[in-house]
Amino acid sequence: MKRHIGKVSTQFFEFDNPKQPLRLRVGGRLSRFTLAYEMYGQMNADRSNVILLYHAMTGCQHAAGVNRRIPGLDGRWTAELYEGWWDGFIGAGLALDTRKYCVICVNYLGSCYGSTGPASIDPHTGRPYGSSFPVLRMSDIVDSQMLLLDHLGVKKLHGVIGASIGGYLSLLTATRYPERVQVVVPIGTGVETTIYQRIINFEQVTAIEADPNFRGGDYYDGDPPSVGLALARRIAHKTFVSLEDLRARARAEVVSQKPPHGWYEMNHPVESYMLHQGHKFVHRFDANSYLRILDAWQWFNLVKEADARDFGRLFARCRDQDWLVFSIDSDLSFPTEEQGKLVGLLKKADVPVMWITVHSDKGHDSFLVEPRLYTPHLAQVLER
Amino acid sequence: MKRHIGKVSTQFFEFDNPKQPLRLRVGGRLSRFTLAYEMYGQMNADRSNVILLYHAMTGCQHAAGVNRRIPGLDGRWTAELYEGWWDGFIGAGLALDTRKYCVICVNYLGSCYGSTGPASIDPHTGRPYGSSFPVLRMSDIVDSQMLLLDHLGVKKLHGVIGASIGGYLSLLTATRYPERVQVVVPIGTGVETTIYQRIINFEQVTAIEADPNFRGGDYYDGDPPSVGLALARRIAHKTFVSLEDLRARARAEVVSQKPPHGWYEMNHPVESYMLHQGHKFVHRFDANSYLRILDAWQWFNLVKEADARDFGRLFARCRDQDWLVFSIDSDLSFPTEEQGKLVGLLKKADVPVMWITVHSDKGHDSFLVEPRLYTPHLAQVLER
Repeated sequence: MKRHIGKVSTQFFEFDNPKQPLRLRVGGRLSRFTLAYEMYGQMNADRSNVILLYHAMTGCQHAAGVNRRIPGLDGRWTAELYEGWWDGFIGAGLALDTRKYCVICVNYLGSCYGSTGPASIDPHTGRPYGSSFPVLRMSDIVDSQMLLLDHLGVKKLHGVIGASIGGYLSLLTATRYPERVQVVVPIGTGVETTIYQRIINFEQVTAIEADPNFRGGDYYDGDPPSVGLALARRIAHKTFVSLEDLRARARAEVVSQKPPHGWYEMNHPVESYMLHQGHKFVHRFDANSYLRILDAWQWFNLVKEADARDFGRLFARCRDQDWLVFSIDSDLSFPTEEQGKLVGLLKKADVPVMWITVHSDKGHDSFLVEPRLYTPHLAQVLER
Repeated sequence: MKRHIGKVSTQFFEFDNPKQPLRLRVGGRLSRFTLAYEMYGQMNADRSNVILLYHAMTGCQHAAGVNRRIPGLDGRWTAELYEGWWDGFIGAGLALDTRKYCVICVNYLGSCYGSTGPASIDPHTGRPYGSSFPVLRMSDIVDSQMLLLDHLGVKKLHGVIGASIGGYLSLLTATRYPERVQVVVPIGTGVETTIYQRIINFEQVTAIEADPNFRGGDYYDGDPPSVGLALARRIAHKTFVSLEDLRARARAEVVSQKPPHGWYEMNHPVESYMLHQGHKFVHRFDANSYLRILDAWQWFNLVKEADARDFGRLFARCRDQDWLVFSIDSDLSFPTEEQGKLVGLLKKADVPVMWITVHSDKGHDSFLVEPRLYTPHLAQVLER
């Protein structure tokens, strides 16, 4: 009997501890912050059945069921977000079986779906943080979520799962807090930022920062840098889907030849399609959040952020865990070689690992839309 | 005995024919325009030894030898252009042997190295064309160069050669003017704009048009849209080199962490390297020219622009020509599949064709920097 989750709502964890603030990796501290999260399934008596699920870069805490409203998001909660982004994976009888497990998904610190980020009000000034929001690293996002687990009384996670840069966070959780994790499932991710990722991430940074509305990040009293953010999204989007899939999706698109930014007239459906992807996105995401997460991606350093000396010592911490690594054969964003590096390092460190490559025509985004490709192995490794 | 060309200078062809203006494909006409060109080697008595060489998108007429000065370019003639871009290919005993052939290379109509383009003065207004410069298609660039050949008394070319979108122009010349060409050598090109090219070209269009200095193309009385043009160049540049080569080149780069556009601090040499590529480029190229050539690339339609009904009838015109098609195995911009399509169509139309794939670690730009990979077959096909 497989049943999807019904109506759900986002909960908020309010951290407020001036004596023991969250110390951030490159300096700065947050004594007050909010994390928006959702939970599916019940925690068991000893709280040992919790699975922490990390969303991808522009994702959110709403992973399963239907949620039509989250307060305080300034219109960013658009209809395309109402259904949870992993709805086909989480529920009774599904890969993350809510009859057995309690799944928690938390909006990244720095993001814009209810967790504290640059668009939030700085309690010290009463105005949005903007450029004054502290610099974040991936490990800060992980650390903040560990504080939530402390608050919920969860000492050890049954599993941690994440795809894309959510995969980075799963690697960091497993290596920075090895005693707090049993099963680790990174999907379409890697142990380092690739050259190609660096290049296109940096293009996106420039697209946002060069938008005159960006004003160094302090734009909340005016128009947001939507043109730059939309271009950034387009630059990224093409790497998340396969080009064939994109061609097919574009076929349905009406070609508008109206010059979108001035002189140039479009002449192919794929242009209208990409333009639409950009336009749609700027309604639901904040440019500063996007920039801050890109920044953490560019600076991602697994060994350093887990306070290890090298990969050998890093993964040696994981020998008591169970790892399942997924690759997608058509992934342009995190090619299979990247997971190969991860698996090689795990094996060298004698960590039990299974590596499964799924065939998909969908590219990187396969992990969002093809639950059947992942479910059997996911269920098996969680069952242990 | 192999000898490179010494000092050379650019010549100018002034077209001025109000009665028979150049009629442009999508409307508009030019009764006056200039083409900047260079010639290497001597024309023989019956002018049957001429090779027309098309440069690539941001290239120029200066293909061989040393040229330190071209008048009227507003500082765009930077030191990196002084040596001809195919200097290792053109000269006595080289692939295009100037003891036998007369090589002509012409700056595209619409470009900015002496040929008439958007930055040129419109004789009707006394001010730069800017946004009023007529829309160009690839066939217009070819047509304008045929007028130069008429002027020079060249009825039939011994050969036409072009790489990248210069390859498009070589295909167009061979199919639109089949009786005017004997040997055809397209390098790293294709018969149509690919989906990936469309997507990243369109990103570049947006980067330029969204720069507030662009002002629809009428920016010559103020600051040019350099931030947008630099970003456009970066978006393109990564597809011209192999990522491995890029990693190696970046190694020599000093990392500056000074935020280039606002908040973000760079953290890897490849970012400084890409930034430098963009900065360097904006000094030597005009944003309107870049945009107009991108536009012609997006709208490129070989069959239509050669006034054919389909590929079969198009290439049937080429049965008396000799074709040599080059592929580069690491080409990310024009992957080998694209040349495969071309060769398949040529074979189907019974056109004599040789297809050579060179192995290179350099990516698309191999054709600029590795003459030894191309020289033997080039020399052979021209020798016929």
